[in-house]
Parts: sequence; C-alpha cells; structure tokens
Amino acid sequence: MELKIELTRQPKEKPADENKLSFGHIFTDHMFVMDWDKEHGWHDAKIVPFAPILMSPAATCLHYGQEVFEGMKAYRTESGEIRLFRPQENFRRMNESHDRICIPKFDEAFLLEALKKLIEIDADWVPHTYGTSLYIRPFTIGTEESLGAHSSTKYKFLIIMSPSGAYYEGGLAPVKIYVETKYVRATPGGTGFAKTGGNYAASLKAQDVAAEEGYSQVLWLDGVHRKYVEEVGAMNVFFVLGDEIVTPELDGSILSGITRKSAVEILRSWGYKVSERALDIQELVDAYHAGTLKEAFGTGTAAVISPIGELKYNDLVMEINHNEIGEISQRLYDELTGIQWGKVEDRFNWIVKVK
Amino acid sequence: MELKIELTRQPKEKPADENKLSFGHIFTDHMFVMDWDKEHGWHDAKIVPFAPILMSPAATCLHYGQEVFEGMKAYRTESGEIRLFRPQENFRRMNESHDRICIPKFDEAFLLEALKKLIEIDADWVPHTYGTSLYIRPFTIGTEESLGAHSSTKYKFLIIMSPSGAYYEGGLAPVKIYVETKYVRATPGGTGFAKTGGNYAASLKAQDVAAEEGYSQVLWLDGVHRKYVEEVGAMNVFFVLGDEIVTPELDGSILSGITRKSAVEILRSWGYKVSERALDIQELVDAYHAGTLKEAFGTGTAAVISPIGELKYNDLVMEINHNEIGEISQRLYDELTGIQWGKVEDRFNWIVKVK
Ligand SMILES: Cc1ncc(COP(=O)(O)O)c(C=O)c1O
Ligand SMILES: Cc1ncc(COP(=O)(O)O)c(C=O)c1O
Repeated sequence: MELKIELTRQPKEKPADENKLSFGHIFTDHMFVMDWDKEHGWHDAKIVPFAPILMSPAATCLHYGQEVFEGMKAYRTESGEIRLFRPQENFRRMNESHDRICIPKFDEAFLLEALKKLIEIDADWVPHTYGTSLYIRPFTIGTEESLGAHSSTKYKFLIIMSPSGAYYEGGLAPVKIYVETKYVRATPGGTGFAKTGGNYAASLKAQDVAAEEGYSQVLWLDGVHRKYVEEVGAMNVFFVLGDEIVTPELDGSILSGITRKSAVEILRSWGYKVSERALDIQELVDAYHAGTLKEAFGTGTAAVISPIGELKYNDLVMEINHNEIGEISQRLYDELTGIQWGKVEDRFNWIVKVK
Repeated sequence: MELKIELTRQPKEKPADENKLSFGHIFTDHMFVMDWDKEHGWHDAKIVPFAPILMSPAATCLHYGQEVFEGMKAYRTESGEIRLFRPQENFRRMNESHDRICIPKFDEAFLLEALKKLIEIDADWVPHTYGTSLYIRPFTIGTEESLGAHSSTKYKFLIIMSPSGAYYEGGLAPVKIYVETKYVRATPGGTGFAKTGGNYAASLKAQDVAAEEGYSQVLWLDGVHRKYVEEVGAMNVFFVLGDEIVTPELDGSILSGITRKSAVEILRSWGYKVSERALDIQELVDAYHAGTLKEAFGTGTAAVISPIGELKYNDLVMEINHNEIGEISQRLYDELTGIQWGKVEDRFNWIVKVK
C-alpha cells in the first residue's frame, strides 16, 4: 500500500519545559489515518496534520464500543537516536484485539513502517530528558453511519502521538493498591485480553471509589471465583513470594502485557524462578502473615515498573517491604529503562531504531 | 435550563416509500445536543440541524468506551397522534447506565420535554404505516481531549432519530437462536445491566459465529456458572414452562428491558403465573424432553415480541411449538403493539403524548 504524506503548514509550538510534561494532553503536528470498507479493505493510508475528525453522530464506535487501541513509546537516547521497544508486539496484540471485536486485521509490517515514518516527521517532538518519551496511540474505530447493532462496515485506523513526562517525578515511588471485591473488570469468554474501550469503561467506577479512599488503583480479582488475582488498572502484577516470583497466568481475562512478558524474560535470564500461574488472594494474605511476601510490583508501558507499597484487602492492610522499593523491582526498572533509553545493552534484540 | 432551537434551512427529503424503511440508516432533520463540563454541569441544551460532529481524535469515547445509549420509539396512531411508550423508563435507565460508567446524571424531566419538542419539530418524519415508527436514540459520550484512562471531564448528550420500518415484513415470524457456550457477554459486578457500548462490542463475535451457522441471534448464559439463561442480543427472554411463564431475574448482568417489564405486567394482569428467577439451561432441556416447553419469545423495543421457533444447545436442536407462533406470544404482541399504536386502551397509563 502507498503511504501519502501531507505536511502541516502550521507547525505548533513544542512544549517549553520538558520537566512539566504530563500524560496525553499535547499532540504532535501529524497523525496517521487509514480507512477500511468492504470494497477496498484497508486503503488510503496517509500522514496528515493532526486535526479533529468529522464524525456522524450515528457512527458505530459512539454507540456499540467497536474500538481497539494500543499504547507504546518512542525513546530518545543520549546520542539523539530515536527508538521503539518491541513495537511488533503491540501491532500483533492489536490485531488480536481486532479479531475479538470483529474489526478486520491489518498488515503489521506496513503499519510499523508507517509509524516509523510518522515519528521521523515528528522527530522533534520526542523529548530529550531521561524518563520522558513520545507516547504513541494507534487506535481503530467503527465509523459506519448506522444504528444496527452489528459489526461496522467502515473503520478508521489512526495513530496519534503525545510527548509525555517521566512517570515518577522524584524517581520510583511505591503505590497503594486496593483489592476490588465488588466490581469485576473481565471474565473468561469476555474481552479482558483485548485492548478495547469497554474494559476501561467498566473499570472507571472502581477506580473512582479507590481514589476516594486514598488508593491509586485497584487490583482486580477474577469474575468467576472472585479470588484469583488478575491485574491492576493499566498494569500486570508480580509478587515475590519467598524465592518464587509469581505473576497471574494469561487466562483470557487479563491483558498480555509487553512489559510483563519482558520482565519475565529478564528475571529468568537472571536466574530467578518465575511462575505464571493462578494466584489466590488468600495465598498472598498467608504469605504476608508468614513474612514471605517480600515484594510486589506492577508492569506497564506507562510506569515501566511500579512498586506496590501497600495492598488493602477487605479490612486487612498489608504493608509490603516497609513501603519501600524492593531490590528486584529496582533492578528490573533499571534494566528495562536502561534498554529503552539506550544505557544498557539490548541483549534480547528488543529495540527497533526509527532511523 | 433553557432549550435553544436552530431550525434547518435545508430540510432533507423524506423517505419515498415507507414500506421500504430499514433500521437506523436515515436520520431526521434535527438533533438534540447538550454539553457537560466541571464548571457548568449539563448546559447549552439545543436543538440543531442533524450534522456530523467535529471530534478530537483523542476524545475519551474513542479510546475508553465511556459511552451510554438508549433506544425508544415514537408511534403514530391512525388519527395522526404521535406518542411515546414509557419514555420516563428509558431516561431513568439511562441515568443508571451513566452512574455505572461514571458519567454525570442529567435531569430526566427536562430531557423528556426536550425530546417531545424535538419530535414536534420533526413530526413529519414519524412514519404513518402500522408497525413503522420513529426510532429515537439518546446517547452520551466522553469528549475530553486526553489519553488519561480516567473519567472524562467533558461530555456530550445527543438525541438522534431515525424513521424505521416494521420489524417483521410479513407479520410475526419465529427466529432460530443458538445457545452461546464459548463467549460471555457480561458477569455480575460488570456492566451487563447498563446500556453501554462495551457490552455490544463484546457480543459481536458470538453473533457473527451464530449468523454463519444460520442462527439469527445467540442466547447468552451467565459468565460464572455458564448455565443460567440471561438474554438474547437486544432482547430479554421468556419461556412458557407448563403453566409457569419464566424470565431470568435481574441479577445485574442483564438489561432491565422496558418491554420485559411491560410484558410481565400484562401477563400478570391476564392471570398468568410469571416468575422472575434463575433459569438453568438444563431445566429448559428437561422441559423440552418432557413436552412442557410450550413457547419461547424475546422482548425488546425493536422487535416488540419475537417468538423463538428453534433453540440449539450444543448438539441438541429444540424445536419449540412446531416452529410456529405461540398463543401467548401472539396475544402479547397484539396487546403491546395495540397500546403503542393506539388500537388498544392504554389501561396501564404507559403512553406519553407528544402534543
Ligand atoms: C489493562 C492493562 N493491563 C496491562 C497493561 C500493561 O501492558 P503493557 O506492558 O503492554 O503496556 C496495560 C497497558 O497497556 C493495560 O491497559
Ligand atoms: C442487551 C439488551 N437486552 C434487552 C433489551 C430489551 O430492552 P427494551 O425492552 O427496553 O428495549 C435491549 C434493547 O434495548 C438490549 O440491548
């Protein structure tokens, strides 16, 4: 497929102070757009100036949630090189989400090339400070103008990009997490493994309640037994239990995180015993009382590694590792960010250079 | 709140042949729009010409599925009167959906008045043929321009309307339904009772598979035990088992249908025993074998009453009432449509006249 390019005539001003960048509020000068219809399949791929889109109020995505997204980052090394971290994994996962939500699949290799071109054009938007990055948001929406509750016959695939600040202002900081016992995010047979809007809409209520109680996120339990640990907001979770590192297995109701996968590979390469298995919340409680719950952390593109300093389950408040960053969490954070920002050797071949 | 009105200068042509109206493809001349932000709450309510809306590609609703909708109809009687069927119930349910998806609630009485005004303005769009109607779609979307996965700080509430054809071209016709055993639509603690996009996105895959196998819709089972009957696509379900009429209870994972509620009230007024209770699919299979599964039907705004002529569960194909319309289904259909189109006395006080 050909990639058309139309450059902006009104480049915007870049953020003045990179230390004040927040998350997802500012957008670069350009975006990628591609359309799908029954006759042409995916077609009309183009890079155009970032701008609002004109949408019918009857567009499928506004009613029936037929929408899928991804999240990844472009990093700038000290030498000025711009690079991506395992972007093929994001496009692969996106196609899996497409499949679950009945959106036609796309050519992953073409999209990776289009993304690289888009970043090249907006290269000056990739921030320079260590820890800052260009957040990349590919997404697909159903755009048929019709109220029938069936798969859309028209789609738009877009990529928008936003320079984003370091997740931790003063370095790695432990978070307080609340174990959700009332609301459920996903269940096997549902859409939990897909990155689709409905999963996030379903989770807002619990997040709001947690925030009111002073917790930054919730830890979800499975929807069937209401006892197996699943994941946290936009992160997968790991627990250091004695000399075993446990992360919930991919059972179809949690997202298959790319940071999760990378963490498992790194930890194993260091000789740790890592288990992907069902993890009963009671096992965590028992380990806490036995003194073997040594560390807990979340993994995700946004936070990289997020140590969990406090975990509340019903009336039990479990302080983990004295509410301090654990050794393994810190080492993993340094390794992952080191690879991403080019300070540590890319021994797994995860980096894709933009140019 | 004041309601501003801006009439179109370019009225569209109305559909030439009312017998050829399909569902949700043609829209009337006007729509209702209202905005929400933290400072003003719901404000700037207005009726404007139906037109595409300009939307940031970063709008919350396109990523995190923060969207809620309703579906109701305006009916024209033989004498030309235009009327709604229990519209207060739709706005009440919509506010419940808002609450689950963390969208601020709205003033239901104001919205009903605004809707009446909108219908008055577009009155000529309400079709005349018995069985046809004006389908009404109120919906709310999160419109904050930001990629943070939290509740939006801006919303739009819209109402669009579409003249729609009779659901059954040649009168009531039984449908074939397939009991879904792989995919799950909703689970307690989730969003099943809310009319929000994600529930519909989650259901597309199973619908597609059912369609390939020649079935028109799927019957969902509960997500925990995978055996309790829930609902069908956009309908609640009823089964006549001996002299008991059973419909699944409202357990939080199915939609509280307004047609369901009305059917229960009508059936009880006729002296039938109606139970809202858990219904194991095995009980249906046993009743089928015992010859006591006499009728099955779906209820919903679109189809009103939809007799189920065939139900497939794993390898068992159950033909119900010789694949013909049952007595109770037919009587209920006649009563409900009679009340709606003004041929039967409105003895429950369900009708709201538009003017
Ligand atoms: C629900 C959910 N779980 C886990 C993750 C972590 O995935 P990744 O490491 O690929 O960013 C994310 C964020 O992408 C998420 O949204
Ligand atoms: C999932 C679902 N269940 C049931 C129904 C029936 O509800 P009502 O009778 O209010 O139209 C609908 C349609 O509105 C629906 O979307």
